[in-house]
Amino acid sequence: MGMPSRADCESLDARDPLGRVAAEFAAGEPGWLYFDANSIGAMPRAAQGALARIAEEWRRLRRRGWKDSDWLDAPVRLGNKLAPILGAEPGSVVVCDSTSINIYKAVRMALALRPGRKTVVAEAGAFPTDLYVAEAAAPVLKRTDSLAGAIDDSTAAVLVTHTDYRSSYRYDLAALTRAAHERGALVVCDASHSAGAVEVGLAASGADFGVGCGYKYLCGGPGAPAWLYVAPRHQSAAPVIPGWMGHADPMAMSPDYKPAPGAKRHLAGTPPVAGNALMEAALDVWRDIDPAAAFAKHAALSDLLIRLVEYQCPDLSLASPRDPARRGGFVSFRHRDAAAFADALEGAKVVASYRAPDVVRFGLSPLYHRYADIWALGERLRQLETVRMQ
Amino acid sequence: MGMPSRADCESLDARDPLGRVAAEFAAGEPGWLYFDANSIGAMPRAAQGALARIAEEWRRLRRRGWKDSDWLDAPVRLGNKLAPILGAEPGSVVVCDSTSINIYKAVRMALALRPGRKTVVAEAGAFPTDLYVAEAAAPVLKRTDSLAGAIDDSTAAVLVTHTDYRSSYRYDLAALTRAAHERGALVVCDASHSAGAVEVGLAASGADFGVGCGYKYLCGGPGAPAWLYVAPRHQSAAPVIPGWMGHADPMAMSPDYKPAPGAKRHLAGTPPVAGNALMEAALDVWRDIDPAAAFAKHAALSDLLIRLVEYQCPDLSLASPRDPARRGGFVSFRHRDAAAFADALEGAKVVASYRAPDVVRFGLSPLYHRYADIWALGERLRQLETVRMQ
Repeated sequence: MGMPSRADCESLDARDPLGRVAAEFAAGEPGWLYFDANSIGAMPRAAQGALARIAEEWRRLRRRGWKDSDWLDAPVRLGNKLAPILGAEPGSVVVCDSTSINIYKAVRMALALRPGRKTVVAEAGAFPTDLYVAEAAAPVLKRTDSLAGAIDDSTAAVLVTHTDYRSSYRYDLAALTRAAHERGALVVCDASHSAGAVEVGLAASGADFGVGCGYKYLCGGPGAPAWLYVAPRHQSAAPVIPGWMGHADPMAMSPDYKPAPGAKRHLAGTPPVAGNALMEAALDVWRDIDPAAAFAKHAALSDLLIRLVEYQCPDLSLASPRDPARRGGFVSFRHRDAAAFADALEGAKVVASYRAPDVVRFGLSPLYHRYADIWALGERLRQLETVRMQ
Repeated sequence: MGMPSRADCESLDARDPLGRVAAEFAAGEPGWLYFDANSIGAMPRAAQGALARIAEEWRRLRRRGWKDSDWLDAPVRLGNKLAPILGAEPGSVVVCDSTSINIYKAVRMALALRPGRKTVVAEAGAFPTDLYVAEAAAPVLKRTDSLAGAIDDSTAAVLVTHTDYRSSYRYDLAALTRAAHERGALVVCDASHSAGAVEVGLAASGADFGVGCGYKYLCGGPGAPAWLYVAPRHQSAAPVIPGWMGHADPMAMSPDYKPAPGAKRHLAGTPPVAGNALMEAALDVWRDIDPAAAFAKHAALSDLLIRLVEYQCPDLSLASPRDPARRGGFVSFRHRDAAAFADALEGAKVVASYRAPDVVRFGLSPLYHRYADIWALGERLRQLETVRMQ
């Protein structure tokens, strides 16, 4: 396999069964290349209509929107649209709150399900906010460099950042879950940097709880509502924060809490109607998409980027796994002066992101990136190298 | 004082210094009268522009929106815009999460600040979700019919629904707080049915924590972000759910949690950008409004409604306090067949709400309701009575 050509990329686009999907997203600023799917995914064109509909319903229906529109059951409806993308069972996902809040709920639920065990194990290099929340939620947080090796009989739960936010290393969730379950521990998986880009496989892995944000590869918009997965066998657990939206009959205003069946009981407060409308517009893009096909395309786009960089950019070295099965939603490269290189990228109208100390990340979307976009990125990276070498 | 006339109402509108404010809100459906400010407040006209701006920034800036726009500090900025409406100190309010989540945080914080005390006291008739959350958050929840009488040396916190959701009875927050503090207990006040309509007076009352929703009288839209008040003397308390948005430097990605100064540390996850934009459009309506003038107008509108009903509608009896200082955002009336009467109201194109077993509620906004609107409501109520008597 030689250096891919522009024609190769165009040919891949022409044959791409998902090639039509890019047209469902709004274009960014002319001349800019956006590789920040790992941060804020692109805006689906339908988002504008979704906002207009919510504004019109707010103006016209007001409180009647809770019964005459579809606001009230959005957390469950959106969860069911999201479930196949996460490889989750129907009815096991709700869209709600923020990732931080959902981590808190999942960790406290895991502790309640393992009475007598007081420790949560997490990677020392986990996404920092996951550690902050776990430290507050658990009596003991054990930070480790080796998750599987740190699990013992005091471990209530393992909190795993499914895809590392610097290297894009993606855990083998099934293997980790087996190791945890063998010691009687539960698994809480933060799949923020995986969901919508690569396989998470919540049901197949046997993971107990999952959380993630809605604004990266899922394209739900900045600060989109997050999601919470509760494996079916744990769904009857007592909710940690039992608000009225998780009540069997919220509008009965009963003084006593009676949880709704299924994952719905893990909802608390009133759903954010505008945020959910944007999130639903994004999930509806997946309507006719086989998630496996999207994940295969994501792997191919990522492989292409790696090849283009390795042929053309000697200053960049791959910081992510070469095996697509171990890679998350973005590809990162090391650079000896990564912060300055990230600035140069912005000067060259490439939206990417820097993470200390030495990596630059390119977030790829299987929905809206075309092979030709990867080619164009390769060209800009090559031109930056050329300028540097003059 | 006789029965007010239509001319009296029009004259009141003509002299109303807040009369111009109604034009800042979008009209609802022609022919309908909306008295659901207690449920979903009207949409500010600026909401449309706020949504268009967010969509444009999302499309164009993507991840750069966190530094090139005003998304990131919205929770604190909006809190500061909200603080005067709540009578709160600058820097003591953040806009975030849902009311349920914020109650959980406030109750857990109060328990942490009163080690050794295990009980939270709440009214048996408090807003039900407040009870659900408190029961899960506290080792012991004591439900009582008399808040002040139930406080003892085991009480960590009193959770008070500032305005009752059926009668609109509004607690004397200062008196209740004195009673609690005398016994060493803290006060958590849910002011959802007060904020934006009547005085809450968080600072003046000495209350310790406050929470409330953004979608009722504050007009932030369905499922708007909620708010959390932390009295300055408690702001250095450890956050209950310490997510990255409460970190002193969220983007440093430090593995160790270092809380931001002030109320900001009580933020957790990524802010909901669209929801905050709508909430800010609503708070900006208050830009040139003296909250005290708004509360005085609200009392006058409520008094007018009571007089019109008592002159014309023998089937309705006042279920709310007659003293405006003890009344919250809505006025409720008892009816011997309130559910059917609520249906008849909807048939007469009046949006109000029924609460079991016997009350109908009319939520009044000091921002967008005019005295003539109250007159029009009185006319429809009278016509319903006339039809019934034929």
